[in-house]
Amino acid sequence: MWKPISFNTREFLLKLRFLESLNAYQIDLTNFINLWQQQISEEDLIQTCKKVNPLIYAKPKVLSRHIMSLLDTENDNVVKNMEEKDNQIVLNLHMMLDRVCFKYQFILELQPAECLYKEFTFPMVLMISELQKQKEIMSELLARKDLEITQYKLEGAKLIRKLVQTKPFDQDTFNRNCLESISETKAVLEQNPSKIFSKSFANLYQQVITASNKSKTNTDENSNIESEMENTVQILLEENRTSSKKKSMQVENFPIKDSKISEVKTEIPELPNIIPKKKKKCQVVLNL
Amino acid sequence: MWKPISFNTREFLLKLRFLESLNAYQIDLTNFINLWQQQISEEDLIQTCKKVNPLIYAKPKVLSRHIMSLLDTENDNVVKNMEEKDNQIVLNLHMMLDRVCFKYQFILELQPAECLYKEFTFPMVLMISELQKQKEIMSELLARKDLEITQYKLEGAKLIRKLVQTKPFDQDTFNRNCLESISETKAVLEQNPSKIFSKSFANLYQQVITASNKSKTNTDENSNIESEMENTVQILLEENRTSSKKKSMQVENFPIKDSKISEVKTEIPELPNIIPKKKKKCQVVLNL
Repeated sequence: MWKPISFNTREFLLKLRFLESLNAYQIDLTNFINLWQQQISEEDLIQTCKKVNPLIYAKPKVLSRHIMSLLDTENDNVVKNMEEKDNQIVLNLHMMLDRVCFKYQFILELQPAECLYKEFTFPMVLMISELQKQKEIMSELLARKDLEITQYKLEGAKLIRKLVQTKPFDQDTFNRNCLESISETKAVLEQNPSKIFSKSFANLYQQVITASNKSKTNTDENSNIESEMENTVQILLEENRTSSKKKSMQVENFPIKDSKISEVKTEIPELPNIIPKKKKKCQVVLNL
Repeated sequence: MWKPISFNTREFLLKLRFLESLNAYQIDLTNFINLWQQQISEEDLIQTCKKVNPLIYAKPKVLSRHIMSLLDTENDNVVKNMEEKDNQIVLNLHMMLDRVCFKYQFILELQPAECLYKEFTFPMVLMISELQKQKEIMSELLARKDLEITQYKLEGAKLIRKLVQTKPFDQDTFNRNCLESISETKAVLEQNPSKIFSKSFANLYQQVITASNKSKTNTDENSNIESEMENTVQILLEENRTSSKKKSMQVENFPIKDSKISEVKTEIPELPNIIPKKKKKCQVVLNL
């Protein structure tokens, strides 16, 4: 799922996925105008990481998970830098593991406009449609509640506790009142449009994307996996954040095997309890 | 305002504006992926029209209005064709006025991604934000209605007309129920995303855009004019449609001044009552 993120004070939305059929990670980054993407196989990710971090030791899966988690972690120890070139965004990430600098570089390529539509605009259109439908049904429900309240009054009931009395709902007045603050909202979103990803919006987005993929046949493997991943990740998100806090503390006590820094191999601790063992399809920790 | 439109069975959104400060028309066309645009001064529009339609006579303002109205008219007599070239969309429009073919060609240039964001994506983000806010307030209102109904019950009131009784509103159950049909909605929108522009959505969009521009200072002349135009056009829309039906009937009775077709000058009738005379800022008929 898209998640607001900032690099060098610039605001973006980031989406991380593991494509099981390709055994690869996909990183999408958008500023609502362009979309940059990198697809990298788990093998390449690990090999590159080992090359630039010869002193770091970890099991392959732990290593790949650790690298990906750096992208959207809120851990202040992770330093993130971004460079925008012609058709690329280069994300440089580094953090200190004990006294060793752990680093990784992602290179995301600018994608054609169709890709932005598929990954970002179309899901937003679906969200608009869903929100619009929900608004219409809620408006009908409010009218029915008003009818029930009116009926109580018609049948002679009188409220003693006047405090809970409501005014009849009127859609036009409601719209007008809501719109009074729209220019402030506009000013906020002009500065940073990713602010629409509030908690309740993100929850609904998650539900919409999952539900809209559900009816697909099993032959559409990727989407189903992604949908399942997104479901699971939602649950894991908080757990992962807690564990990343613990991890950064554990790092302080990393054993240094040798006094010569060139020979030190820093071990990345495995993130405990993050992957439910029975959920075979969700093999990777992603802060979606 | 954006309006769904199809050319050669392809679906687009079209936006027509008159930029008073430039005395020019701006035509925006998007398929949600790219945005094509043409800005043409009223003078150039009229000159080009006279060149390709030497037999047609009309007052300049009437002529320019007539050309623009062809773009989004639902009049079946207007034949629309679209050609997509590398960075252009060419719209060929023609209709028979009496026995004379009236034609015009718009050439829209592909715009950079920032332009799509400004003209289309950002207003959609604003809509999402507004719909999300409205949904949250309506959810609170429903809870308050339920509280009032519960209070009636607690105070001993019993409904005789059970038919109007409602169930307490539960947001999670509501979301779940709404999402049951999301895969069908997705299938429809995948075919034609401009279907989100339902009547109620278009109304809200209109209100959001107008309200979000209201707080601007008067120095931002263009936006205010556009906002005022859009307000007025909303009212004129139905009137214009009615009059365009009348017009197409009137066309049948056009006087042919001479039997030699080469000398015929077909006069485009002025669209009556379309522009309120007192509203100086709204000088042009646009079916927005």
